[in-house]
Amino acid sequence: MNSEIKIELTEHSKINSVDFDNLPFGSVFSDHMFVCDFKDGQWQNPTVKPYSPITLDPSAKIFHYGQSIFEGMKAYKDADNNVMLFRPLDNCKRLNKSAERMVIPQIPEELFMAGLKKLLEIDNAWIPTNDGSSLYIRPFMFASGNGFHASPANEYKLIIATAPSGAYFAGKVKVLIEEKYARAANGGVGFAKAGGNYAAQFYPTQLAIEKGYNQVIWTDDNTHEYIEEAGAMNIFVRINDTLITSPTSDRILDGITRKSILQIAKDTGIDVEERKITVSEVIAAAQNGSLKEMFGAGTAAVVSPIAGFGYQNKDYDLPELEKPFAAKLKKQITDIQTNKAEDPYGWRVML
Amino acid sequence: MNSEIKIELTEHSKINSVDFDNLPFGSVFSDHMFVCDFKDGQWQNPTVKPYSPITLDPSAKIFHYGQSIFEGMKAYKDADNNVMLFRPLDNCKRLNKSAERMVIPQIPEELFMAGLKKLLEIDNAWIPTNDGSSLYIRPFMFASGNGFHASPANEYKLIIATAPSGAYFAGKVKVLIEEKYARAANGGVGFAKAGGNYAAQFYPTQLAIEKGYNQVIWTDDNTHEYIEEAGAMNIFVRINDTLITSPTSDRILDGITRKSILQIAKDTGIDVEERKITVSEVIAAAQNGSLKEMFGAGTAAVVSPIAGFGYQNKDYDLPELEKPFAAKLKKQITDIQTNKAEDPYGWRVML
Repeated sequence: MNSEIKIELTEHSKINSVDFDNLPFGSVFSDHMFVCDFKDGQWQNPTVKPYSPITLDPSAKIFHYGQSIFEGMKAYKDADNNVMLFRPLDNCKRLNKSAERMVIPQIPEELFMAGLKKLLEIDNAWIPTNDGSSLYIRPFMFASGNGFHASPANEYKLIIATAPSGAYFAGKVKVLIEEKYARAANGGVGFAKAGGNYAAQFYPTQLAIEKGYNQVIWTDDNTHEYIEEAGAMNIFVRINDTLITSPTSDRILDGITRKSILQIAKDTGIDVEERKITVSEVIAAAQNGSLKEMFGAGTAAVVSPIAGFGYQNKDYDLPELEKPFAAKLKKQITDIQTNKAEDPYGWRVML
Repeated sequence: MNSEIKIELTEHSKINSVDFDNLPFGSVFSDHMFVCDFKDGQWQNPTVKPYSPITLDPSAKIFHYGQSIFEGMKAYKDADNNVMLFRPLDNCKRLNKSAERMVIPQIPEELFMAGLKKLLEIDNAWIPTNDGSSLYIRPFMFASGNGFHASPANEYKLIIATAPSGAYFAGKVKVLIEEKYARAANGGVGFAKAGGNYAAQFYPTQLAIEKGYNQVIWTDDNTHEYIEEAGAMNIFVRINDTLITSPTSDRILDGITRKSILQIAKDTGIDVEERKITVSEVIAAAQNGSLKEMFGAGTAAVVSPIAGFGYQNKDYDLPELEKPFAAKLKKQITDIQTNKAEDPYGWRVML
């Protein structure tokens, strides 16, 4: 493997056309991207080059068999223009875990990190400094090899592209606890960030949106009795003063924000339980007033408070608390991410 | 919708480079393809053009969220050079059923059929006449719209490409009945020909191949007690003289070969049952000698006899019959497909 990164700079930066005070999420793309090809049994030709179209044969397996995975990461800039990542190796390790399940070749960590760092160095000016904004980083890998045969491809591409982004959700979210559709099978690929997991959620999510909700909270496909995750985020439930989240499994994504929140909560004296959560206990807690909070946690969503949820054609509102766990934990994790607080965990990586 | 089909012919036909006596499956592509774009809320610009690369933005949702579906069809030529399709509208209807579940806009049947017919007219010379060969047709639709946001795209492409092809499997197949991994969730997308369903099968299939099997027979994700399908084909089991196949469900593909075989079998006096099949009854039947045959059925696989299966680290061989149902049914269906027999069902469509 030749890991020397080739650099091709753009001759037409788009940065002056970007309104950094009004950034959408994930739809304005930076000048460059990192690309690496897997062929002849090895990763090769790592290059930072202008963000530009990808050309593929119509029989490329990505179009037919959904052999693709991705990650979501963020880069932050502090007041002194230092650039920081948050637990980036964890994303690389999870990318490789997804790769293994989807029979995509794993990317060496050093190559991934070298490409990412070189890209951020070149597109440093694209990392927003506005509060609540960050550079969303999207590493993805897909089957670029050809053939109408349902088997793994022989060629792949890793691309890291970036998008300066504002908040994923505008304000609190309303969720629907799913009773009919399911996101993942036992023994399936729910734990992987596989492309197909996301498209599979669009239809039930669209039905939920038509009913006035923002997201679906998935339940197990067999009984619909256990709360799993929300597709774009893991879910935390606070009953009285205990914060509960479902254990990860082969159906539930091992969220990096999820595990960071769990750690921070424990270390600041919050009573934390990682265990199965039944829908019925959440309903009972909502009814007897012990359900204080629910929130989602994920790289894009950060910590997203849930205003209320629907279940069996009934809506349940969550109380407005003066000092919710969600706000406290969100501040703690973003302060670490953006170098506004000490990082006792070694999660922050300065570039 | 403008459904007038634009034609752009290739200036460099590749047909003379093809060895029609030694065709692989799905890896030699014909000169042209049919392309239609969905944008601004409608299907537009239907064109038959040279088979050529597709260019997409790196943020195109196909790369990230697996929003793609496909179909498999075949065109046949008889001794008089008549061109025939088999139940093509059923493929179009199933494509649209998959589209609905994956939030991809449905394609009008007339447009689909007009594009397909025009393509086959132009690439008529690519339809093989050799016994056992046919023109494999791959219609597929995918999200070409952009953005790092897990939501349906606003633009899509439908492409129909074709590949003159020989047999999908060389000879009988050995299958492994799966005990750990699963293909589909209840309430999931297993019934759809969604791209992500296929990549999700690669890893368990690879493990099976390493153990000496060709394919996995999927079981339900909850108990692994019920036989479902084989990913590339539906499964039939013959116990004594009764032919049994699992009912379709939201986990099992409604195979066109499957339902045709069911119909032909019934009409030729074979005792047919469409009901849940337990792994334990198959094992018991293998042990007491009443398990006579197993075979797969699908467009690519046609009717593929199974030589034996593995389960819980034990191999079960199927007997060599003199007049297996599989051979009889395969002949009946291919005779209808290739105009060697009467078609009492109206399945064959002459172009």
